This record gives sequence, C-alpha cells and structure tokens, in this order.
Amino acid sequence: MTTQKLIEQIHKKKSFLCIGLDVDLDKIPKHLLKEKDPIFAFNKAIVDATHHLCVAYKPNIAFYEAYGLKGWQALKKTIEYINENHPEIFTIADAKRGDIGNTSSRYAKAFFEDLAFDSLTVAPYMGKDSVEPFLAFKNKHTILLTLTSNEGSSDFQTQKINEKELYKHILETSKTWNNSENLMYVVGATKAEHLAEIRRIIPDSFLLIPGVGAQGGDLQEVCKYGMNDNVGLLINSSRGIIYASQDENFAQVAAKKASELQQQMAELIN
Amino acid sequence: MTTQKLIEQIHKKKSFLCIGLDVDLDKIPKHLLKEKDPIFAFNKAIVDATHHLCVAYKPNIAFYEAYGLKGWQALKKTIEYINENHPEIFTIADAKRGDIGNTSSRYAKAFFEDLAFDSLTVAPYMGKDSVEPFLAFKNKHTILLTLTSNEGSSDFQTQKINEKELYKHILETSKTWNNSENLMYVVGATKAEHLAEIRRIIPDSFLLIPGVGAQGGDLQEVCKYGMNDNVGLLINSSRGIIYASQDENFAQVAAKKASELQQQMAELIN
Repeated sequence: MTTQKLIEQIHKKKSFLCIGLDVDLDKIPKHLLKEKDPIFAFNKAIVDATHHLCVAYKPNIAFYEAYGLKGWQALKKTIEYINENHPEIFTIADAKRGDIGNTSSRYAKAFFEDLAFDSLTVAPYMGKDSVEPFLAFKNKHTILLTLTSNEGSSDFQTQKINEKELYKHILETSKTWNNSENLMYVVGATKAEHLAEIRRIIPDSFLLIPGVGAQGGDLQEVCKYGMNDNVGLLINSSRGIIYASQDENFAQVAAKKASELQQQMAELIN
Repeated sequence: MTTQKLIEQIHKKKSFLCIGLDVDLDKIPKHLLKEKDPIFAFNKAIVDATHHLCVAYKPNIAFYEAYGLKGWQALKKTIEYINENHPEIFTIADAKRGDIGNTSSRYAKAFFEDLAFDSLTVAPYMGKDSVEPFLAFKNKHTILLTLTSNEGSSDFQTQKINEKELYKHILETSKTWNNSENLMYVVGATKAEHLAEIRRIIPDSFLLIPGVGAQGGDLQEVCKYGMNDNVGLLINSSRGIIYASQDENFAQVAAKKASELQQQMAELIN
C-alpha cells in the first residue's frame, strides 16, 4: 500500500486506529476453543466487527510463533482474510526482525511476499545493511524500533552518544539509508514528551505508537506532540479492544471500544 | 543442555565447531529437489555426515520463514531429528528475537519449548525486560547480539556512550540481569581485535562467533584473543561447509570441510 492511500483511508474513516491482533488462547472466549482454528475464528470475528473503525491491523508474530505450525497457519489465514476482504486496511507484521543483508532479504520475502503484509517492524541494532533489504520493497514499509514503551528502553535507547540519545542517532542515521521514504518508526505512547523532539528530526514520517490504554499512554498528549499535516500517526491498541469481553458478544464489545477510540480520533483530526 | 555438558562435548570431540544450517533451495544439490521435503533431506544428510565433527548446529530461522509453512515444517523436523538422534549436540535457533516482556515470553516458549532448541539469539535494543523472559528458562541459553560482523555494526554498536562503545555497555549491563549465567554473546569473527577487550568484561561466557571463512574471519586470531579456560567459543561456519559441493556427494564434501576445521580446532585446544 502506498503512504498516500493510507492517508486517504485515515481521512475517510476519521480514524488512525491500529488494532493489535495478539491472540492468546487463554484469553479468548471459551466457546471459540471448539472451533477448528480458534485463533483464526477469533481474528475473523474481530475484523468483521471493527474493520470500519480502524485503518490498520497488527498481529504480533510472537503470539503466533508460540503455537508452532498451528499458529503460522492461523496467521496466514488471518492476513489472507484481511487482504481479500478489506484491501483498504494497512497490515503490520509486528515481528521485530533484522539480520545481516542476505538474511534480512529472507525475512523481507517471508513477510512482504509469502504473507503479503504491507509493513514489518524491524530492529535497528545491526545498522544500515540489516535494514536496507527491507526498504528495497516498493510500497512496503519498514517500521523501525526507535523508542519503545517498556522499562528497559532506558537501558540503551536513551543513553547518550555525543550528548544525543541513541534513539535520536538512529532516527538521523536512518534518514540517510537507501529508500528511507519507506521508513516508519515505533515510538511508545508513554514517551509523549519525546514526540516533539522526534518530530523535529522526522517531521513527515508515520509513527506507530503502541501503549495507549493498557500501557498507560494518553491519546491527547500523543496527538498534541506527534501529529503532523498528514496525521502521521497509527495508534495501536490490543488488549483494551480485543479482550474487552470474554463473552459470546466479545466482537461487539470490541467494536464498541474501538468506536470510542475512533470518535476521539475523529475529533482530534478535525 | 547445561554449559558443563557443552564443555565436555567440546573436549570429547576436540571441536568447537558450529555448523550453520542456512538452507537455500537455489543452492542445494538439484537431485534433492525431487524429495518430498528437500530442506529436511538436505539437513538430514549434512547432520548424518558431520555430527561427529561439530558440537552445535545453528539454523538461521530467516531461511525457513522465507518458505512459509513448508519452511517451518522442515525446521521442526530438523530440530526433532537432531534432538532424537544426537542429543549431545547443542542447538541454536538463530532468530534474533526480542520484544516487551510478555511477548518475549511467547518467543521463548516457541523456541525453547515447542521447537526444543537449547539456545536462541536475541537482540538487545529493548533492554533488560525484553531479555530476562528468555533467561528465565533453566538450562536454556540466550545468545545476545553484541558485536556483529556486518558493515552496519559501526552505525550503532561501536558508537561511544561516555567514551565506551555501545556493545561494551550492553555486555556490562547484561551481567546485572537476572539469570545472567544463561547468557552467551554473538561476536563477529571479523572483529578479532576487539575480543581481548570483550574477554576482560565477560571472561567466562561462551561466545558464538560467525564469520570465519566466507566472511573473512581468521580462526587463529579469534582463538588467540577469545579462548578461555573452558574454550568458551563456538565458531560457526555455514556456506563454507554446507555448500562446498552441489554434487550428489555434497554431504561427504561438507564433512571433509568440517573435518579440516575440526582438526585445526583440535590443535588449538591442545
């Protein structure tokens, strides 16, 4: 998907909501466990109920890998279902991959071609030649881990190199890479105070922001400092939406939660 | 596997060779493509021919992910074959995973339980709480990316924080984490000159060293600076062994290449 199409969808739906499809069989409604593929059944119900309220879905790949082959099968069915029925939705494989050049190419092939995701989260630690193989794919987006919302983000990400935090160094360096127009960045919502500085370095890029809701981030604050002329934000919520209810009506409750966020977003866009 | 058992195997086999099982269907002998599962057929032949010469096998997971479900099936068959037939072999999932706490636990479950690898490579960027979930598994080993052999390693890894390179900062910080005795470290063989300094910070830990051979690293140099009283090294070679021949006798040629390295290692251990 082109960035332009994503921006159009945001304005059409008045939403920049991304729903995290982090499926945990211990948390989904019990009646789904009787299904042949409970993970897919859960995802399908969530997608059917919420697709008009969000612009993106983001499965975190760890949740699927944990179930082995069954998990990968469910992931493949999920992305195929979204791509076939809702091609206007931007899809994010939250996989945090990254390796030396020829190996990164393999990961890119896996997620951009075999699974046909629009984008993939990538870890920056190994530098330019570990990220450029992902950037080489046209109309595919590489979402670089920049400043995460977990406690350990202060271990290395905010340590200073020449009086500048490592994550800012990564932002600046990444702008010099080939096809850097295909970059987006992960910035945790609990770091709203850093967003103004981040926007000075990358005014035009999209930011994927997890951590609103369950992890304590504040939507108003994030928008105040992070929004740009194209909105430029994808706000992810997972648990707060998909596990809002464990009853048979879970999908409707999820839609209600998504709708509440969408309505706040509509106001913030205006 | 315990570290003690790994050390015993190194002395018994007079080898600290790790063979990288990075299977590329474009590079394996053509006659294997007729097999029902060419990836597994290739791995089985390599393992059958080389298991007495090496102490570890390291599939790079990207190569399997690139083939989708078929690749994951072949990976599962490969690790099961090694664990059943050669339980004395140390197995490494080269996956470079890492995420926030509850998500890292999922990756740990995938590789340590579902696939039953002895160890996993992990990216350090997200800090303590992204790595500790892996360290919590008893007799499983977390191999932290430290200093890689690719060009991009100079982008961030060797940048200085308070006059100390980021990778050294990671080494020192990681020693303070819970269950840090389960840590090993990835250090590229092309960085032999850094090994003496690394050994001052982590004298006792095992180092996984890719890049000998095809990538230009020198075995003698690596051992001079990196070996400790328990040997403390796993030297990985992939392409130089597994793709030494594309003929029907590829496994024997691979064994010959592995044997050459093993003999050099036997001398270096003595």
